[in-house]
Amino acid sequence: MIGIGPGSPRQITLEAVDAIAATDVFFVLDKGSRTSELTALREGMLAAHAAPGHRLVAVPDPPRDRSPADYEAEVRRWHTARVDAVEAAVADHLRPGETGGFLVWGDPALYDSTLRILAQLAERDGREIDVEVIAGVTSASALTAAHGIVAHGVGEPILTTTGRRLASTPDGANLNQIVMLDSDLAFRATAAADDIVYWGAYLGTEHQILVSGRVADVTAEIEEKRAEARTRLGWIMDIYLLQKAR
Amino acid sequence: MIGIGPGSPRQITLEAVDAIAATDVFFVLDKGSRTSELTALREGMLAAHAAPGHRLVAVPDPPRDRSPADYEAEVRRWHTARVDAVEAAVADHLRPGETGGFLVWGDPALYDSTLRILAQLAERDGREIDVEVIAGVTSASALTAAHGIVAHGVGEPILTTTGRRLASTPDGANLNQIVMLDSDLAFRATAAADDIVYWGAYLGTEHQILVSGRVADVTAEIEEKRAEARTRLGWIMDIYLLQKAR
Repeated sequence: MIGIGPGSPRQITLEAVDAIAATDVFFVLDKGSRTSELTALREGMLAAHAAPGHRLVAVPDPPRDRSPADYEAEVRRWHTARVDAVEAAVADHLRPGETGGFLVWGDPALYDSTLRILAQLAERDGREIDVEVIAGVTSASALTAAHGIVAHGVGEPILTTTGRRLASTPDGANLNQIVMLDSDLAFRATAAADDIVYWGAYLGTEHQILVSGRVADVTAEIEEKRAEARTRLGWIMDIYLLQKAR
Repeated sequence: MIGIGPGSPRQITLEAVDAIAATDVFFVLDKGSRTSELTALREGMLAAHAAPGHRLVAVPDPPRDRSPADYEAEVRRWHTARVDAVEAAVADHLRPGETGGFLVWGDPALYDSTLRILAQLAERDGREIDVEVIAGVTSASALTAAHGIVAHGVGEPILTTTGRRLASTPDGANLNQIVMLDSDLAFRATAAADDIVYWGAYLGTEHQILVSGRVADVTAEIEEKRAEARTRLGWIMDIYLLQKAR
């Protein structure tokens, strides 16, 4: 399980480079053509670092209901379908003694289900799968680095959350929030006018866009740039830090 | 400002390697002999990646009151003394046209004051300092990778906080907590017996220690291993993830 960072070919670690070079078969959980540019970035990393003779196996991503009545149940159902798909791909393509690798954007411990898939696969097979996890640079670190900022006031906590959960952050945990997986810019419904937002899209890639400022001042700009880029490029990956006005 | 990751010489990014190679003078905020092993690790990275002729300048860390009556005021006073020290070191050692670099463990955006020091220095001088920040792998990512775990349940938020602040985390934000800067294992006062703790020390180094399990089962083991290693090695860097029992 190899964290390959937020998007830049230079934002992967030497440890990830070593792991890529030691992998025989790469299993790619393919989310379809919307992210073909991400696929190209990933394949560029393999071209640069993988051993000659490595193989690439696309594992089709099962369809998913994005607006289910029961969110957690639908996520569980979808995970099981992904485990089925990975199990089939591994059985078909990984030979005895070979090492399989999964490239994960950002860090494998954050909002990525590949580790859960392998854990379920190990249980299902009734055999040990020896999993090694290579840490990656998070998109949160890429965001704060691109803006040249510290993520928090002196000694303060930071909450990493999702757009879906943003509205339920309790008081006292909302000083600094990193918001991921937010296709709806949920801060528009939760933030005060004087709160500060540091937004970034396509971090580390040639398309990188940064906007920061008071929520009242920059929300329209973020909406416009986000919509324009998404239409032009056909996909978007974005993240933001929301800091409560002091 | 170069994030060099949590400790392993292989857990730095290609971008950090590039930045180290492009730096003329490295300014090291030296916390003294307690962390001489960290200094050696850092110098190993320079030996591997820095250009011939680079210089290393130790900036002595001003003394700090670790138990002040007013924590924030003491931190501000100490920051100002650090800005003085960095200003003097830069004036003495960085020639016109040269690039100065600061190596920061982990990621520069998290619980590190070097970015604040440079911001204050820029204001003080009344001149622009062109700061570039290189993101690094966080010790939180190293911790979860070493344990082979995802940091959260499906879709849940994660709070990154300090030992000092742990007791003031509000309900609803305490499902998954990454705790840093905790010399007192503050979870002993806040966690329930069935909560799960994933603890790690010296992550990425040859001394790495990992302990995980129910708080009631593993707290004594963490206390013992932490105390033993700290005595034996003379320093400790540790971090943990605390997950609320479900």
